[in-house]
Amino acid sequence: MRIAILIQYDGSSYHGWQFQPEHETVQGVIESALHKLYGVSIGILGSGRTDSGVHALGQVAHFDVEQSAVPPENIWMALNQRLPDDIRIIGSAEVDAGFHSRFDALERSYEYQLTTNFNVLHRQSQWHVRYALDPELLQAMAIRIRGEHDFSSFCYAGTETENMICNIMQATWNGHPDHTLIFSIKGNRFLHHMVRMLVGSMVEVARGKWSMDRFEQLLLRPDRQAHAVTAPSTGLALVRVQYPRDLQPKWKAEYPNLASRG
Amino acid sequence: MRIAILIQYDGSSYHGWQFQPEHETVQGVIESALHKLYGVSIGILGSGRTDSGVHALGQVAHFDVEQSAVPPENIWMALNQRLPDDIRIIGSAEVDAGFHSRFDALERSYEYQLTTNFNVLHRQSQWHVRYALDPELLQAMAIRIRGEHDFSSFCYAGTETENMICNIMQATWNGHPDHTLIFSIKGNRFLHHMVRMLVGSMVEVARGKWSMDRFEQLLLRPDRQAHAVTAPSTGLALVRVQYPRDLQPKWKAEYPNLASRG
Repeated sequence: MRIAILIQYDGSSYHGWQFQPEHETVQGVIESALHKLYGVSIGILGSGRTDSGVHALGQVAHFDVEQSAVPPENIWMALNQRLPDDIRIIGSAEVDAGFHSRFDALERSYEYQLTTNFNVLHRQSQWHVRYALDPELLQAMAIRIRGEHDFSSFCYAGTETENMICNIMQATWNGHPDHTLIFSIKGNRFLHHMVRMLVGSMVEVARGKWSMDRFEQLLLRPDRQAHAVTAPSTGLALVRVQYPRDLQPKWKAEYPNLASRG
Repeated sequence: MRIAILIQYDGSSYHGWQFQPEHETVQGVIESALHKLYGVSIGILGSGRTDSGVHALGQVAHFDVEQSAVPPENIWMALNQRLPDDIRIIGSAEVDAGFHSRFDALERSYEYQLTTNFNVLHRQSQWHVRYALDPELLQAMAIRIRGEHDFSSFCYAGTETENMICNIMQATWNGHPDHTLIFSIKGNRFLHHMVRMLVGSMVEVARGKWSMDRFEQLLLRPDRQAHAVTAPSTGLALVRVQYPRDLQPKWKAEYPNLASRG
């Protein structure tokens, strides 16, 4: 049977999501926990990779198991007992044998958190920006990138992807009283480093170092050699992966508020 | 000369503030950094102790040094280069030779964060409560404890303090859209475990396990053997220490927003 799991992780201590033989990765650690639970090697497939240091509040992955002594809706608990506390499974469900966490995903949502007011408790989940930022400029750029665009200028130059067109359904900046700024973005797909390069470049404009036109040109003249600025991985989190309604896993989860986001 | 420093720390990895020869403490680590900076042993005195696992966003401490090659307003930077990233000095200033970070403090402010919506990124700074809580009951109790009371029922039984009267100038609960609840309290002094015992007991009422009257009786009949419930240290942070205006250190700090709170 096929099982889908909903995952939160603090990426600070990991070399990203994707399994690497020489490094500790989130996928590798969850596969070890599955091995402990079932006594056999089980590979998992995630909705997408996250880079080294990037977090997740709603990553989705699936795996196949011949039979499970633990009922599907309780697998999250059994896994948590075998995982470090910076990786938490917050839901599990049996899904159709044809469900695919990556290929079936319709939309992915990310959040990027930055602050101009350092807080040691958030040092691993926020980018500390030492400049004053103009929130209206930030929001103007968020609005500008909505819709379908060629995001070549905001893609890691070494990537192998050819299709550079992404459809951005939602992009907005929200300010909070503690001087935290949160960028929320939802799209059908994202290029390698895309959210970090959007945020890094927006900050250049909002601090007054770049003109708005310079940002605009990156969007109007797609160029993989363009010098967009990449924000640190620390502030980024994959918050939600959405599937067509009939495929959406029916999570039985400890944390109903978050599960309903997934 | 006497130097005051403004300190943030994530208490998760430390056995509290107070120096202990056998354990790593925040005071011990800062004293080591001072030793590296000045080449001699220098003791520091904090505004108050924090327990194992408790955080600070605005702890104040002072120390004496015969002379400093580093100008007082830059000492915070020199110390940060010699400290781990879970302890950050965010301001430093020369103060009167008579200034005392503990005895001169007029008011101390704490915040306690809890959430009913688990977030792995906040696992070390929030208490994850698995019950639904009634925010109106929480706020009614916050209002109830304002003013001068004997807080014996909310004091760790093994304490050596005799004076159990504290004056609470401010106490309030604020809810946030992400299901975080923050309890803010300001008082002239606090007993050992007092904020954690207030929060733990308020949560018993707000989840429907205790009656409001049971909480009320703890306040009306001070008793050091009373069975108040202690909330975990994880959610607690010392956020601010206030001094009389003429004694308040004039921080030169990297983080102006926070320094202005101190």
